[in-house]
Amino acid sequence: MIGLANSFDLDRICVVLVATRNPLNIGAAARAMSNFGFGQLRVVNPYEPSFREAKSAVGAAELLKSAEEFGSVAEAVADCTLVVGPTAGRDRDLQHGMRPLEEAGRLIRGEASWGRAAILFGSEKRGLSNEDFSHCHWLMRIPTREGQPSMNLGQAVAVTLYELIRSPEAAPSSGKRAAAAEIERLREVMVEALRECGYEKPNAGKSMAEKVRRMVHRMAINPEDAETLTGMIRKMVWKMKSRQGAG
Amino acid sequence: MIGLANSFDLDRICVVLVATRNPLNIGAAARAMSNFGFGQLRVVNPYEPSFREAKSAVGAAELLKSAEEFGSVAEAVADCTLVVGPTAGRDRDLQHGMRPLEEAGRLIRGEASWGRAAILFGSEKRGLSNEDFSHCHWLMRIPTREGQPSMNLGQAVAVTLYELIRSPEAAPSSGKRAAAAEIERLREVMVEALRECGYEKPNAGKSMAEKVRRMVHRMAINPEDAETLTGMIRKMVWKMKSRQGAG
Repeated sequence: MIGLANSFDLDRICVVLVATRNPLNIGAAARAMSNFGFGQLRVVNPYEPSFREAKSAVGAAELLKSAEEFGSVAEAVADCTLVVGPTAGRDRDLQHGMRPLEEAGRLIRGEASWGRAAILFGSEKRGLSNEDFSHCHWLMRIPTREGQPSMNLGQAVAVTLYELIRSPEAAPSSGKRAAAAEIERLREVMVEALRECGYEKPNAGKSMAEKVRRMVHRMAINPEDAETLTGMIRKMVWKMKSRQGAG
Repeated sequence: MIGLANSFDLDRICVVLVATRNPLNIGAAARAMSNFGFGQLRVVNPYEPSFREAKSAVGAAELLKSAEEFGSVAEAVADCTLVVGPTAGRDRDLQHGMRPLEEAGRLIRGEASWGRAAILFGSEKRGLSNEDFSHCHWLMRIPTREGQPSMNLGQAVAVTLYELIRSPEAAPSSGKRAAAAEIERLREVMVEALRECGYEKPNAGKSMAEKVRRMVHRMAINPEDAETLTGMIRKMVWKMKSRQGAG
């Protein structure tokens, strides 16, 4: 299942920095992207003064100038067909598949031959939140040692991007997946349906939304099926609402 | 010639930081070493306040505390049988063999099964000098793109160490090489002999010393031959000096 990708396109891979506060780290991430030939930087809720300061970083000014800003992870990855994030490999991974960086590299290169992949990196202090992880199809693991698993942000970005360009080997994905925005629409109508049918209590908080998002990502649903399923559930919601009105 | 090394020992690989002035970079290098399980840090002429400041770096305090300080590259690599340095790949490499990082990794792992390898990293501003490079057996090239070849120090260290632990594949070295201190002794007596015989003018500066060091490193001489040759040339020097006295 491993082949040499001849259409592996670096511009189909985005680095997404989530809530990064340290300008040196933003600059370092951009520097590594520039070193290895990646141009698509997206930032979610950056700390504004840091982001401005980072824009003067050595050797990556151009890249930072063209970086796109988003208000949420969902918006930043809306057009992406694969979303992954790094983890130091602890309890919270149990909800996701976890792949060693080398395997992750093959899969991301495979995705970048037809779709669009996003790699999320969290803030230095807290990494990615469970909500951030819920946007991921799976997590990747840089082979750090157990006693000191947590990497500096700029170094984690550099090592990940090096692995991506190190080899052209690409694993073809098993099928075309829906983009994150389509998954988000499906998730929203699903949550609404679960609320309507009483599966979830109103105001039960974020956990159900995240749970459904993770489930839908695990399904690796294709664009047509996502649309069909969204339509089916929307109809169920309509029916449930109209029954309530009648009753 | 590629085999799986079963005796690849991370403690036989030293990271040598030459004239590093930025405490954040020293700390970042130590952090990456700690992440990937490397413990041997050597620093050459660090800027003292920076080095002290770096010792408080997150997650690498232990490693920085045990770092050894040296007054010169020669002293820092004296016990090493292989010395390499990274280069962005420009003119000055012509004097040395240059190997892609993956191949360098196999060779360094091979060396670390019996000898001791040093990887030099230069200061952020100027990198390694020609004098620093003259201590190297060969140079290694991280596959950065041509338009932006120069990496941040901490990121270059992280990517190099990741490549070293990524795979256990090791290339056996063609034979045991003399340690740098033995090569240095041979170089010194050679330079003295060249001076005595009139090949080099006195006070001709550093260039001859560097030229001879590079030549001896290229020869990949084994410990016994280094000792024999040093003895031979020492005898020639003695003869030349005694003839002068007689004449």
